[in-house]
Amino acid sequence: MKSRTEHLAMHLPGTTGFVNITSQVQDAVTASGVRKGLVLVNSMHITSSVFINDDERGLHHDFGVWLEKLAPFNPDPNAYHHNRTGEDNADAHLKRTIMGREVVVAITNGRLDFGPWEQIFYGEFDGKRTKRVLVKIIGE
Amino acid sequence: MKSRTEHLAMHLPGTTGFVNITSQVQDAVTASGVRKGLVLVNSMHITSSVFINDDERGLHHDFGVWLEKLAPFNPDPNAYHHNRTGEDNADAHLKRTIMGREVVVAITNGRLDFGPWEQIFYGEFDGKRTKRVLVKIIGE
Amino acid sequence: MKSRTEHLAMHLPGTTGFVNITSQVQDAVTASGVRKGLVLVNSMHITSSVFINDDERGLHHDFGVWLEKLAPFNPDPNAYHHNRTGEDNADAHLKRTIMGREVVVAITNGRLDFGPWEQIFYGEFDGKRTKRVLVKIIGE
Repeated sequence: MKSRTEHLAMHLPGTTGFVNITSQVQDAVTASGVRKGLVLVNSMHITSSVFINDDERGLHHDFGVWLEKLAPFNPDPNAYHHNRTGEDNADAHLKRTIMGREVVVAITNGRLDFGPWEQIFYGEFDGKRTKRVLVKIIGE
Repeated sequence: MKSRTEHLAMHLPGTTGFVNITSQVQDAVTASGVRKGLVLVNSMHITSSVFINDDERGLHHDFGVWLEKLAPFNPDPNAYHHNRTGEDNADAHLKRTIMGREVVVAITNGRLDFGPWEQIFYGEFDGKRTKRVLVKIIGE
Repeated sequence: MKSRTEHLAMHLPGTTGFVNITSQVQDAVTASGVRKGLVLVNSMHITSSVFINDDERGLHHDFGVWLEKLAPFNPDPNAYHHNRTGEDNADAHLKRTIMGREVVVAITNGRLDFGPWEQIFYGEFDGKRTKRVLVKIIGE
């Protein structure tokens, strides 16, 4: 069994945003030498996500509007008890829950085994600081 | 390490629906010869899901009503910017996000290691065309 | 390839609640002897979750309030068709869908490869009875 671990550094200038990390994950798979196996890609932080969807600007706008509706930002510690800790990011924990922490992707013939539109994104909901994405590859 | 890759073709006559694919996944596990390991099952499309829940008709009805409430269909490109591309399926991308892209299931003694009611479903939110589910098995 | 399977018994006195199971999962990883690999942790039941987030009491309160808003309890079989089966837990199936069934975590140097605040939780939405969490480790 071969394995490889990589960490990708993410730093978004704003509070929220999506970054396409597909080519970085493919590069890690290629570097691993794994021809068949699995790759786990996860946010190492609890206010950001890794997910798979379409690389389409309008859809990303829609995700932002929709998440704000389902889990609105509100610094008021009466609205979210988490904000009694001095934080104001309770909504980011909820948004990340909708979008997910991780994806697991099949590796076939050394490539991410993807359908026609699948792309891997990092989703940030509490940015302006450096965070990390873990890429873990196992296989042979 | 053994591995096996299979693709299941899915074609739903309507826009939405759920299909129990548990026996097809078990058949792939049996064919792989893997006695202990993991199986990844994921939609290869970004407007459909693979998820685990109960095979109960009433619950599937409830999922449909609930998803329509959380992420309503609306072809208006002002409601969803994604629909400015000429598509009308922005809601399907959001519904799939709630239900999830993939499941990872343990294989023990050559069987899906499931609790009493766990069943694997394909969830379609933008049907009337052929799509694919990827089954990737690794183990020994 | 090494592998190990463990089942954790969960019994919550109330209908809902969150239990930090991180140390139990780490203990299983240690017992497996796996130094690099993956661990799958999933609920074996369809009205409970395994997820990763912060071990902060206020946030857990917020999750409860938020889930009740997105998927309210309602025993009325006209509100949820699933409840026509004689059950009253349709909302628990929906809540579990938001929070997720499973997590996959990287193992590096024999440890859960976590960011600073990541903790693994069992989330119960239909308690007062014994349920099980599956821990499946593969690697070497």
